[in-house]
Order: sequence, then structure tokens, then C-alpha cells
Amino acid sequence: MKEEVFYGRGMKKIRSDYPEIYDAIIKLNDAVYTGKALDYKTQKLIAIGIAASRCDESATERQMRSAVKELGVTSDEIADVLRVVLLLSGMPSFTKGMRILEEIEK
Amino acid sequence: MKEEVFYGRGMKKIRSDYPEIYDAIIKLNDAVYTGKALDYKTQKLIAIGIAASRCDESATERQMRSAVKELGVTSDEIADVLRVVLLLSGMPSFTKGMRILEEIEK
Amino acid sequence: MKEEVFYGRGMKKIRSDYPEIYDAIIKLNDAVYTGKALDYKTQKLIAIGIAASRCDESATERQMRSAVKELGVTSDEIADVLRVVLLLSGMPSFTKGMRILEEIEK
Amino acid sequence: MKEEVFYGRGMKKIRSDYPEIYDAIIKLNDAVYTGKALDYKTQKLIAIGIAASRCDESATERQMRSAVKELGVTSDEIADVLRVVLLLSGMPSFTKGMRILEEIEK
Amino acid sequence: MKEEVFYGRGMKKIRSDYPEIYDAIIKLNDAVYTGKALDYKTQKLIAIGIAASRCDESATERQMRSAVKELGVTSDEIADVLRVVLLLSGMPSFTKGMRILEEIEK
Amino acid sequence: MKEEVFYGRGMKKIRSDYPEIYDAIIKLNDAVYTGKALDYKTQKLIAIGIAASRCDESATERQMRSAVKELGVTSDEIADVLRVVLLLSGMPSFTKGMRILEEIEK
Repeated sequence: MKEEVFYGRGMKKIRSDYPEIYDAIIKLNDAVYTGKALDYKTQKLIAIGIAASRCDESATERQMRSAVKELGVTSDEIADVLRVVLLLSGMPSFTKGMRILEEIEK
Repeated sequence: MKEEVFYGRGMKKIRSDYPEIYDAIIKLNDAVYTGKALDYKTQKLIAIGIAASRCDESATERQMRSAVKELGVTSDEIADVLRVVLLLSGMPSFTKGMRILEEIEK
Repeated sequence: MKEEVFYGRGMKKIRSDYPEIYDAIIKLNDAVYTGKALDYKTQKLIAIGIAASRCDESATERQMRSAVKELGVTSDEIADVLRVVLLLSGMPSFTKGMRILEEIEK
Repeated sequence: MKEEVFYGRGMKKIRSDYPEIYDAIIKLNDAVYTGKALDYKTQKLIAIGIAASRCDESATERQMRSAVKELGVTSDEIADVLRVVLLLSGMPSFTKGMRILEEIEK
Repeated sequence: MKEEVFYGRGMKKIRSDYPEIYDAIIKLNDAVYTGKALDYKTQKLIAIGIAASRCDESATERQMRSAVKELGVTSDEIADVLRVVLLLSGMPSFTKGMRILEEIEK
Repeated sequence: MKEEVFYGRGMKKIRSDYPEIYDAIIKLNDAVYTGKALDYKTQKLIAIGIAASRCDESATERQMRSAVKELGVTSDEIADVLRVVLLLSGMPSFTKGMRILEEIEK
């Protein structure tokens, strides 16, 4: 797990100060993203949907960036995730997600 | 759109009493689920993730049921969605989702 | 304040066991619903919108019931609140609100 | 609909890249804000309450600004909305809303 | 970890069908509740506060029951947690928590 | 109550423009933080857990700062609160809380 990409700056402190938490997170992360039936890319798209749905801007941006960088996820694929966000979570979540997508594309 | 499957009982009242809202929802639903890049099944899995992430039991159950019935989504696929929910939204959302999945399997 | 109508069964215990909390809630409730510019009915409609937006079924039902009973709020007025919920919070909140409205009308 | 005022920058991208979503949003927006019983101003106040209740700062600011600019909503009216937010959603949502109101007044 | 007490029925299915997720949860649970500075009881009270704050009834009830049963947490201690919920998350979360507490006391 | 520390800038406007709301908040704040069974520090830790759990950055920072400054709460104690947040609310809330803690330590 490349923790900087996934979880941002907070993880460095966790590794040095709370190693037992760090180890548990690594183990959890591996168990989560080793799905039986869905590939990693599909799980990543789901993660974008959940983060955007909560209007959590920093988590949404991090999820989108790592999806684009690591997995070559396209803007149209992210927009298709955001369509579902629009229907299930309303306009503010959707437009916020679109704005983040626009910034990432630059 | 089969509104009973998707949205439950509330939709009947909307169609009869507020037809202009009903029409707007149909149009929105069609625009959302006609993605450019992702297929309907992937979007449906994202919808399950968002609903489960919010601990919204009735919406989660409805999304799961329609995914299984219409698209033949398997339990392992839904469990892989719930793995992401565990990492991003914590244990209560995850166990609630697992419990709903168990009931649906019966 | 008619606490049974507004806040349900939990308030009786608060009044007997935690009177200082009860007094603070009464004072807060009075300060909240004695607006400078908006009338009580408009504030009540806002309360319905907030409760429905959070998918909080029991609070939504209680707010709707007290609005209808005390203030004569109509179904069309509640539906107009739920329209805003649809746009800002998505389909699950909206259909849940509509279902509660339907039950109240009976 | 003046999409810049209502929904911010994200809408331009939606109009050019995903016109079918844009059309669906316009139709939904019109159906939502053409209430049967409540006027546009009351619906706008409900929208402020929902956005503030979720601690969504950018959506709250946008809703407040458009309410003041388009409809001449006063600070006391917005404060009366925030009173309901205080009772239903607690201090952090309320003080955040008050801080945004204060910035808008400048 | 007594998973039935903590997490309810959903955990049995996880143990049998998804053992790698089960193992990761056990490890995480242990790392979480082996705090450096706070005792288990204080962490449990925090868990009640978080669950009640989200209006998540089943998780709140489970947290309260296990706190009372395993750790001898008193009603007054839980009520003191709910006071903080009232201030930070508003009346609906608070009264819902009080109602659950009342049922547990029976 | 030192309102600047607790609630930030928004409170000044409330005191001058809406004194009846200000008085009700003071009364509520006093009733909340005069617990029957838990001390103020434990209630403060619960408040940090609730704020962090919601990904509400400004409220989390304010709660953490006042806990450290007024009550001498340590970093390890705050980290133990965040462990519970990790289990109940997932990684984004946890890493955000850790990042805020890191900034406060500087």
C-alpha cells in the first residue's frame, strides 16, 4: 500500500507513533481490496462514489487522483460514478464532485 | 423504469399527485443510468455502496434486491462492495449491510 | 411546549430524571421558535425539510404529524418541502419522505 | 435557471460534456421550484436549512447568497432558519451557518 | 472479541464466508480498544456518543447494551454522553438516544 | 463559557444580535457540561469523537485545541479517541482527525 497516495499525510504519524494501528490498517486495506468477485478498479469506483456522496472534498479528491494515476480511470468513468451520486445524494454532492473532477483534469 | 422495484411504494403517490415531479425523476433516472463509460451493473454496485455507507437500511435493501433480481449480481459481488464500505464508513455500516445481504439470500 | 407531540416518549424520562436538561431544552425550544422574521409555520416546514433530508424516519414523521395537527399544514405544502429534499439530498430521502406523508394522510 | 448562481462552477463542465445530465437537472430544478403550495422564497429558506444542517459550507454560502441577491431575503430571516438548525442539528452546524451569514453581510 | 455482543448477527456470516475480513476486523478491533492512554470504558462511552450522534438506532442500542453488561456503565453515565450529543448533534439524536436508554433500563 | 474558544467567531454576532438565543445556548452548554456522573474531560473527549466522526474539520480542530489548552488532554488521549472513530466511521474520518492532531501538536 502506498499510504501517501491513498490516505494522505496523516498516515506518516500513524506509522511512527501508533504502529499497531498502522499494521491493522494495512491488513484491513489488503483484505478489503482483495475482493473475491470484483476487480480493484470497480472497488475504487465505488470508493469514489461513497466519498463524493458524503461531500468529503479531500477524500474525494484523493480517491479520484489515485484512481486516475494508478488505474488509468477516465473522466467519463468518474462522471458515470457521479451520475449515481446525483440520483442518490442530490445536487450539492454532484456539483462538488464535478468541480473536483474538473480540477484534476487540469 | 420499474418504479416499484427501484423506489418503493412512495412512487405511486408521486405519479398520481405530482406528475411533473414524476416525469423529472424518470428523465433524471434515465440520464443517470445511461452512462458513457460504465455499464449499468457497475453503476448499480456503486448505488449499493452509497446506500450501505449511509446506514440507510430500506434503501440498501431495495438496491440489493433489484441488483440481484434484475442483473444477477451475486452475494460475493455485494460483499466486495461492502468491503469498501467497511474501510470508508466503518463497522456499523458494514455489519448492517452484511445483515441485509444475509436476509436477501434466504 | 407539548413535549409528547414534539419530541416523543424520550422527553418524559428527561423531565423526571434530568430536570436541568429539560429546562434548558424548553428555553432553547422557545428561543428557536420565536423567530424575529419568520412565522412558526415556516420554521416548522424548515424542520420537516431537515429531518427528511437526513432520512431520519421517526423525526420526520413526528415533525409532519405535529405540523398537520397544530398548524393545519397541507399535504401539498409538505410535498413542496420534499421537492427541495429531492434536489438537495437525492431520491432515497425524497421517496422515504413521500411514504411517510402517505401514511400520515390515512 | 442561472446555473452559476445556483450551483457554481461545476455546472459549466456538465453543460458542455454531459448535456443529457444538464437537461435532466434543468427539468428537475424547474419541477422542484414550481411548488403547488409554497412560494419560491419559502422553498429557498428550506434549502438554506438543509445545506446548513449538513455543515456543507460551500453549498450553504451559495444558497444564502442567491437567496439574498435574487429574493431579498434578510439576515433576520436567515437567522430564523439557523435557529431551527441549532435545535435539530446542534451547535457546530449553527455557528458555522452564523459565520457564513456574517461574511455575506459584509 | 465477543462478536455477537459487539456487532450483532452480521458477524457470523463474515466469519464463515469471508474469514480474511473477519481476521482483519479482529486485529483492528484489538488495536482500537488497546488504547495507550484511555481505558476501555472511556473508549466505549465515546463509541456510544458517535453512534447516538448519527441517529443509528441499532448500533446505539448494541453499544449501550454491551457497555452496561460488560462494563457496568450506569444510566447516568450514558445520559452524560447523550448531553454532549444534544449540544453537538441536536434534539432528534438526543431524544432517540434517551428512548433507547429507557428501553434498555427495563 | 469562553465562547471564542468553544464556538469560534460566529458567537459574537449571536450575542449582540440574538441575545435570547445566546442566553439559551449558555444555559444549554452549562446543563450539558455539568454531568451527573462523568467529568468534564471525559465529556470533552466524547465531543472530539463526535466531531471527528463527522469529518467536520473546523469543529474537530476547535474541540481538540480547547481540550489541549484548557484540560491538558494529551496527544495519546486524542489518538485513543480517534481509534474509536476509525472503527466506527472509517478511514477518511480517522486520517483527517490524525492530520488535525498533527497540526495542533506543532
